[in-house]
Amino acid sequence: MSFELTVLGSNAALPSFGRHLSAQILNVDSSLFLIDCGEGTQIRMMDFKIKMNKIERVFISHLHGDHILGLAGLIMTLGLQGRSKPLYIYSPSGLERIIDVQLDGNYAFPVHFIVTDTRKKGLLFENKSVEVFSIPLLHRVPCNGFLFVQKTKSPNMRKDKITEYKIPYNKIIEIKNGADFLTQKGQVIPNSELTVIPAPPLKYAYCSDTAYFKEIIPMVKGVDLLYHEATFMHDLLDKAVKTMHSTARQAAEIARRAEVKKLLLGHFSARYKNLSPLLDEAKLVFENTLLSVEGLTLSI
Amino acid sequence: MSFELTVLGSNAALPSFGRHLSAQILNVDSSLFLIDCGEGTQIRMMDFKIKMNKIERVFISHLHGDHILGLAGLIMTLGLQGRSKPLYIYSPSGLERIIDVQLDGNYAFPVHFIVTDTRKKGLLFENKSVEVFSIPLLHRVPCNGFLFVQKTKSPNMRKDKITEYKIPYNKIIEIKNGADFLTQKGQVIPNSELTVIPAPPLKYAYCSDTAYFKEIIPMVKGVDLLYHEATFMHDLLDKAVKTMHSTARQAAEIARRAEVKKLLLGHFSARYKNLSPLLDEAKLVFENTLLSVEGLTLSI
Repeated sequence: MSFELTVLGSNAALPSFGRHLSAQILNVDSSLFLIDCGEGTQIRMMDFKIKMNKIERVFISHLHGDHILGLAGLIMTLGLQGRSKPLYIYSPSGLERIIDVQLDGNYAFPVHFIVTDTRKKGLLFENKSVEVFSIPLLHRVPCNGFLFVQKTKSPNMRKDKITEYKIPYNKIIEIKNGADFLTQKGQVIPNSELTVIPAPPLKYAYCSDTAYFKEIIPMVKGVDLLYHEATFMHDLLDKAVKTMHSTARQAAEIARRAEVKKLLLGHFSARYKNLSPLLDEAKLVFENTLLSVEGLTLSI
Repeated sequence: MSFELTVLGSNAALPSFGRHLSAQILNVDSSLFLIDCGEGTQIRMMDFKIKMNKIERVFISHLHGDHILGLAGLIMTLGLQGRSKPLYIYSPSGLERIIDVQLDGNYAFPVHFIVTDTRKKGLLFENKSVEVFSIPLLHRVPCNGFLFVQKTKSPNMRKDKITEYKIPYNKIIEIKNGADFLTQKGQVIPNSELTVIPAPPLKYAYCSDTAYFKEIIPMVKGVDLLYHEATFMHDLLDKAVKTMHSTARQAAEIARRAEVKKLLLGHFSARYKNLSPLLDEAKLVFENTLLSVEGLTLSI
């Protein structure tokens, strides 16, 4: 049961100091979701040996170039590699036309564009493992983040109890669904003795690009990992406000107030060669903070 | 007086084996010309420490994605870096709309799109150092190559003769333009004794993408360096014909018949990990052949 994040690009606006543009891969039980797709994303996936054709769905936060300019090339490459299965792309309105023009309307396999509502939280997709929601962000253009929530698992059956009470195979599903067990001698074994409560479902929230936006706090409450953009240090707050980005301190403030487990900073301005000061600034507010490192896979 | 080529990307269609998509920088007396601009070109320029803002003009061969998908990102980055001087982009018809849609019409500095005629050779641009011509190629969509021709230099003045005949400074320009010199004693010194003929002007031809197309032979006759696409080995001639690409042997055949000085192969299919067989195949027909190596600068 995997729930793993790989950052492919961590820079804002333009590449610098070996850092690339926004893109992440979330692996949920071997389904790959691509989150944003800046220029060069396909090359980063090759660098990190990610099997591109396993990408089922793409989630695009907004239509600024540094989040979308890798998408046409990726679709071309998937087609040239022989993909036939469909690709589903979720984004604010307008992306289909941008991709259409670049590819001159030539798609080698079905590509479905699904328009998100950037004004309120909404369920975009679910399968047996996960639900994906859009969450509103506050940026210069319509923009949403994404919340990935593992589905609640059934309790696990204790194998030792199967042996101890000689539980027949056909009873296991009802016990996993909450039933007690009646032995042949008429003894009632309570469900709580027979099962183990599984780990709570994991949650990952992606918030980029956005100004400081306290309305998201209840939506990302308690998530296991919060990715929040931290384009600037707080001494450039004026610039952050003007461009509708966040500072490292503001990202940490959201993490602290939302009581998340862990904060991952990213979307760094090309002006910063050394990122340690951004990390230090955030840690003063929220200790369990990491910097995005491209190619590193985090188990959430 | 520089006339140097740096290959930024050498692969066809999609990146593979660490090779990137079509893009080259030609440095002519410190003016930088970008030839084609596949996805990731700006990142390759950063990798190779090329000063992007020095690019004056961009020459695009055709509108397939692997030759143009880096352009919108490059324009964005130049704008973010504060560029104010104009950029001139030469390409077959249709590029302006593709870039416009990606940038939502927002240009931070003047970008001029100039449409080429892909059916016949034509002068696109000249300055004091160079003339640039489009040359027709044969591909699935309108496509042209480019021919860069250094301008003929004036003869160089021999410094030893200035001393020997006490030639005044104000006579030098007319001698460089062909005049003889009359000494104070009335002796006529012929121009041929006073000047050295400069090296012949250098020529670089870029031919990608194209099927084998013998009509280009007179246009690239005797060039110092011919870049010719070699997407396939000759055993895949059928595939080359069908997709309107060339084989390594065909590229060498063009080089041999055009009596060029040197051939540079590129635009390699993603199927080839090892490129030596392509080089060997071409060398059987034309010995002075090189493979494109990304990041390597060739003095033409």
